[in-house]
Amino acid sequence: MQTDILVSEVGPRDGLQSIKTVMPTEAKKAWIAAEAAAGVREIEVGSFVPAKLLPQLADTAEIVAFAKTIPGLTVAVLVPNLKGAEAALAAGADKITLPLSVSESHSRANLRRSHDQVIEEAQAIAAAIRALPVERRPHFEGSLSTVFGCTIEGAIPLRQILALAERLMAAGCDEVGLSDTTGYADPKAVREMVTAVRGVVGDKALTGIHLHNTRGLGLANVLAALEMGLDMVDSSLGGIGGCPFAPGASGNIVTEDLVFMLQAMDLRTGIDLKKLLKVRKVLAEALPGEPLYGFTPDAGLPLGFVPEQSTRKLETA
Amino acid sequence: MQTDILVSEVGPRDGLQSIKTVMPTEAKKAWIAAEAAAGVREIEVGSFVPAKLLPQLADTAEIVAFAKTIPGLTVAVLVPNLKGAEAALAAGADKITLPLSVSESHSRANLRRSHDQVIEEAQAIAAAIRALPVERRPHFEGSLSTVFGCTIEGAIPLRQILALAERLMAAGCDEVGLSDTTGYADPKAVREMVTAVRGVVGDKALTGIHLHNTRGLGLANVLAALEMGLDMVDSSLGGIGGCPFAPGASGNIVTEDLVFMLQAMDLRTGIDLKKLLKVRKVLAEALPGEPLYGFTPDAGLPLGFVPEQSTRKLETA
Repeated sequence: MQTDILVSEVGPRDGLQSIKTVMPTEAKKAWIAAEAAAGVREIEVGSFVPAKLLPQLADTAEIVAFAKTIPGLTVAVLVPNLKGAEAALAAGADKITLPLSVSESHSRANLRRSHDQVIEEAQAIAAAIRALPVERRPHFEGSLSTVFGCTIEGAIPLRQILALAERLMAAGCDEVGLSDTTGYADPKAVREMVTAVRGVVGDKALTGIHLHNTRGLGLANVLAALEMGLDMVDSSLGGIGGCPFAPGASGNIVTEDLVFMLQAMDLRTGIDLKKLLKVRKVLAEALPGEPLYGFTPDAGLPLGFVPEQSTRKLETA
Repeated sequence: MQTDILVSEVGPRDGLQSIKTVMPTEAKKAWIAAEAAAGVREIEVGSFVPAKLLPQLADTAEIVAFAKTIPGLTVAVLVPNLKGAEAALAAGADKITLPLSVSESHSRANLRRSHDQVIEEAQAIAAAIRALPVERRPHFEGSLSTVFGCTIEGAIPLRQILALAERLMAAGCDEVGLSDTTGYADPKAVREMVTAVRGVVGDKALTGIHLHNTRGLGLANVLAALEMGLDMVDSSLGGIGGCPFAPGASGNIVTEDLVFMLQAMDLRTGIDLKKLLKVRKVLAEALPGEPLYGFTPDAGLPLGFVPEQSTRKLETA
């Protein structure tokens, strides 16, 4: 098993978009700065979507500009289309993720686009990236969402998923990711999906996974993904967020519990766990009354547990 | 990986001993009957301890007698010593578990006995079992508790753990079990501990594990145990219980989530998951105001999910 794991914090995007309260811009900055100071090396800080759809993320450009001032941090954003990607490029994001829901019903509900339309957006985004000087090109990921099943369609045929993975790569994505939007995954399904998708895109073009804890299997699914050689895992501080467009699907995996598991297994994250646990306070103060999840924050660290000592210098993406 | 997994429900013992409310005997019977009807094949129904210490379990003899009337159910009990074992033998329990805390400090706090004293009890219990006709002898397990670390002593030296495992087998146990009393386990530790203990007792004398979800890693740890070939997992309906003598350690893994994971992975449990989810109501009514845990009960089953169709006839222990 690989020993360095990239924990990609998605709370400021995936978490906040699910919460009605609009977090003040300064609170977002404090949260991002605190997590980066705890050693988190990649944070999805927002999404370039119309402010009327998601007012919670209306300040994404300002947040990207702020996050870019933090040394060593990979600043990731979600974009639904070329227009969002252009804003992301203008803001200087390091990583751009375009979601493509392998369930076409969910794609229409979530992005209001057919599969063909999303692939066209991917092609246009890739062209816009290629038009930039090499040193300014962000990493471009196509995220296969609802890949473990959809609350509207149920299981999606594997052939359809693999065809979409190939089309995303052909459109110009640097890699594809797997996203359990609905919390349907299980360890066996994770293993099988990683094997199948890598079969068409190659090992290097699938390194990351986005899992939910909807049915309590989040960390078991992470373990299965790690065993398959993936080394990038999305999670959300306090477990906030999920997918507001998939009814009954909620609950990102909790960054605090994930980092505890990884460090307990002697995997390296570059994160100072004790510092990370303190960031929870920043979040609680900025979102009063909002439930925060996670077990390790309540239970504390085991007696004699030696976390990674400090934020070590690890290669950033 | 083995495909038949024995889910051993410990709620009526481990769960109820952690809850101050004394559940009425009739409610316990209704709970046990309902879980057995859902296909659960082994239930730890109580513990033979002095009623003044655990009044919640004072009716264990009556509960064992009732549970014995359910065809195909393995009726398990916990005993702290020979006196408890004698009561268990008189009641006709099918399986007797003697906990031995590998942390001697915890052993003194929990069982009020040194390691030598617990081993002596094990020898006396084994002798009492051997004195019975073969067909009436229960299965005798020595459970290595705090095996993944102790809230008083921290990590316990592996040499000490292995010596105690050997001594339990030499004393006459049929097998040893691993118990994460404190919720300190992680998947790597599970793999290493299974390997090490099997190295001294043999593969057939270690088949089961008792895990907690204290830090959210419960099902990830189950996955690691399954991958090592274990095929018996303890859990508690609604996740009630934990260890009242280990401060800060609480939260059994949730039977509902465990069974969902196993069935999603195409492993066989013999349990009708939809029926099992309904048993939760029996528990909620019998323990008003008591928090019940679990994700699958809230989220429901995935669209198109095909659970094991009905309670199939599986070999019982």
